[in-house]
Amino acid sequence: MTPSPLLYADTHASADMLYFGRVEVHDPFIALGVGGKKITVQSALEFGRVKKTGGFDVVLPREKWLARAQELYGPKAGVAEIIAALAAHYRLRYFRVPDDFPASLYVKLTKLGLRLTFADGLMFPEREIKTAWEAGCIREGNRLCTVGYAVAEKILRAAKIKGRSLLYRGQPLTSESLRFALETAIAEQGGNPQDTIVAGGNQACDPHDRGSGALRPHELIIIDIFPRVVKTGYFGDMTRTYLKGRASAAQRKLVATVREAQVSATKTIRAGVDGKLVHQAVTDCFAAAGYVTRQTKTGAVGFIHGTGHGLGLAVHDPGRMSGAVSYPLKKGSVMTVEPGLYYPGLGGCRWEDVVQVTATGSKPLSKYPYNWEIR
Amino acid sequence: MTPSPLLYADTHASADMLYFGRVEVHDPFIALGVGGKKITVQSALEFGRVKKTGGFDVVLPREKWLARAQELYGPKAGVAEIIAALAAHYRLRYFRVPDDFPASLYVKLTKLGLRLTFADGLMFPEREIKTAWEAGCIREGNRLCTVGYAVAEKILRAAKIKGRSLLYRGQPLTSESLRFALETAIAEQGGNPQDTIVAGGNQACDPHDRGSGALRPHELIIIDIFPRVVKTGYFGDMTRTYLKGRASAAQRKLVATVREAQVSATKTIRAGVDGKLVHQAVTDCFAAAGYVTRQTKTGAVGFIHGTGHGLGLAVHDPGRMSGAVSYPLKKGSVMTVEPGLYYPGLGGCRWEDVVQVTATGSKPLSKYPYNWEIR
Repeated sequence: MTPSPLLYADTHASADMLYFGRVEVHDPFIALGVGGKKITVQSALEFGRVKKTGGFDVVLPREKWLARAQELYGPKAGVAEIIAALAAHYRLRYFRVPDDFPASLYVKLTKLGLRLTFADGLMFPEREIKTAWEAGCIREGNRLCTVGYAVAEKILRAAKIKGRSLLYRGQPLTSESLRFALETAIAEQGGNPQDTIVAGGNQACDPHDRGSGALRPHELIIIDIFPRVVKTGYFGDMTRTYLKGRASAAQRKLVATVREAQVSATKTIRAGVDGKLVHQAVTDCFAAAGYVTRQTKTGAVGFIHGTGHGLGLAVHDPGRMSGAVSYPLKKGSVMTVEPGLYYPGLGGCRWEDVVQVTATGSKPLSKYPYNWEIR
Repeated sequence: MTPSPLLYADTHASADMLYFGRVEVHDPFIALGVGGKKITVQSALEFGRVKKTGGFDVVLPREKWLARAQELYGPKAGVAEIIAALAAHYRLRYFRVPDDFPASLYVKLTKLGLRLTFADGLMFPEREIKTAWEAGCIREGNRLCTVGYAVAEKILRAAKIKGRSLLYRGQPLTSESLRFALETAIAEQGGNPQDTIVAGGNQACDPHDRGSGALRPHELIIIDIFPRVVKTGYFGDMTRTYLKGRASAAQRKLVATVREAQVSATKTIRAGVDGKLVHQAVTDCFAAAGYVTRQTKTGAVGFIHGTGHGLGLAVHDPGRMSGAVSYPLKKGSVMTVEPGLYYPGLGGCRWEDVVQVTATGSKPLSKYPYNWEIR
C-alpha cells in the first residue's frame, strides 16, 4: 500500500506545499492526497481565494472539520484531530510526510493511530525535474536578473571616481542605493527580489554578506540577484562581478580564472554525471591556476562554497553540485553553475548562470554578457 | 533539570531562530543553548558573517563537527549525528525543541538517545513581551506603512475619474501600479514590503486577495501594508480603507461602523483581559449596527477574521484576539487591532492599528489619519 502525501505548512516556508497546491497561503494549513485528488482544509478567511485558484481538487471548510474533530475527540481538538477525522472519513491510515513535517504534530498523529513515513529526501521527486513550462518560468526569473544588471551597469558607467569614492548624481554610491535602483527596476517588471547581494571589496569575500556602505573604485563588486517571478513563484538566480575603474593584473587573473572554471564546469554537465565531478572541474581549474582554498582564523578563503544548486520554487531547490555529496544529475533538472574565489585584500569574484540538464549536456536558461571592467 | 533549547531551522521560516541568534541565515542550521550561552554550528560559507554579528556566544565550524560526527557515527553522519556529538561534548541529553522542529530529525535524535520535549506553544515565552527597543522597531515598521499611505493618497487624489475607470498620468490606475508606487517608497526608506494588499470592490471582500487589475471609482479600496524593517527584522502592520469618488450612504455607514468597532476594541485592551472579550467588543458593535456574519456558498461575509494578532519578528507573532480561542493579554505584548466588514456588492473595509498592552490599557505604536473619501 502506497502512503498518501500529507502536509502541514505555509507556502512561505514550504516550497513542497506551493508545488502541491499551486496557491500561496501564509499561515500553516492541511493538505493531503487521496487517490490522486488533492484535498485541503481552509478557514473562511482563505476558503474562497483558494477555491478560485483551482490548485486543489477539494477545498474543505476548516470550521466544519474542527467541529467534527471536537465531536470525535473532545473540545480541545486541533490540527492533529482534524487530520485524524479526515483520515477516518477517507479511510486512510498511512501517510508520507516531508522530513520537515512539524515534530509535535507527528507525535500527536502517531498517538492518534496514524502511520507516518518520511519522504527521506524529496517529498515530490518530480519537483526536481522541470517541465518546459517551469523552465520558461525560471528563464523569466533570470531575465528579471538581467534587468537588474542593466541598471547596475548604467549606474556604474555614469558614476564618477573621486579619490577613494564613487559619486553618482553627486552622492556617494553605496551598496544600498545600487541595490535599491536595481531591485526597483525588477519589481516594476513583475519580480520580487529579496536579499540581493551588492558587495564590494572585502565584504564580497563573505558570500552571504549582502553588502553595505560606500562602494569603492578599483574594487571587485559582486552582484547576486535571485528574484521570484511574482506571477508563478519561480526564481531566477544569477551573479555578475563588476569593477569600476582600473583592474589590477591580479584581479584580472582572478576574474578570468573564475569564468574559465564556469565554462569548464558547464561542459562537464549532463544527465547521469555526479555533481561532485562538476565541482571537481572547478577545483581543478583553480588548482591549475594556483588558487588555494583554506580555513583562516576568521573564516575561509579561496573557493568556499558549492558549484551549484537546484533552482525552482525555492532558491535552493533539490539538487547539489559540491564536493561534500554525491549527486547524480538528472535529465530536466535545473541547476545554477556558480564558481567563485574570495581573497580579502584582493577581492571576490563569482559568475553564476543557470542551465537545464539534458541527456547529452545542458541548455542555458540565463543569458547576459560577462563584461566586468567599467572605466 | 531544565532542558536546553535546541533549534534547527533557517531564519526565513523560523522567527524563533531569528529571535535566538539575531542573525539572518537562509539555510537551516543548528543552534542550542548551553548554560545560558548561545551556540551555533555554521558552514564556512556563513561562519565569518555569523561570528561578526555577535548574536551567538560560540560559533562552531560545521566542517570540523561533521568530521567528528563521522568519526563517532560513521561516514553517513549528518545533522542528527552532529547534534548528538555536540550533546556528548557539552554533556547534555535533554532538550526543548519548538513544536515545528523537523519530525525526521526528531525521530533520529530520539534514536540517538537524546530526550526531546516540545515547547508546546511558545519556544521563547519572552518573545511575546516586547522591550522598549522592540516596540521602537515595530513603531518604525508602522512609520514605513504611513510612507505607503501618503503615496497612495497622493496618487488617488491626482487620479481622474472617467466613467468606470480611474486614470493616473493618462494610464488606468491598477492594484499593481498603486502597489508598486507605495512599495517602492517604503523600500527607499529601509522597508521590505511583501504581499501588500491593494484590493478594491469585491476583491477586497476576500481579505487575503492581494488585488489585481483596474481600481474603480466609488468603490472601497483596502490597503494592508506589513513591511519588514530591513535593519532589525521587525514588522509594521497597518490597514487603511479608501474610496476615490463619491461614497454611498451604505458605504459610509460600513466604514464608520468598522472604525467605531476599532475604537471600542482598543478601549477594552489591557493586561489580563481575555482577547476573546476584545473580539466580543467588535462583534457587539457590528451586531448593534445590524451587520450579520454568515457562511455563503462561495465563502463568508461580514466579520470573517480575528480582531488582532501579535506583531514582532513575524507578521503573525504569538498572541491572538479572536472568537475561537481564549488568550489573556500580557503586559508588554504588541497586538494589531483590525476589525473589518466584507459584503460583496457593497465592498470591504478594514482599519488596522498596532498597540502595546499596558497594565491599565494600551499605548499606540501606529499613527495615521482615517480620512478615506477622496474626491
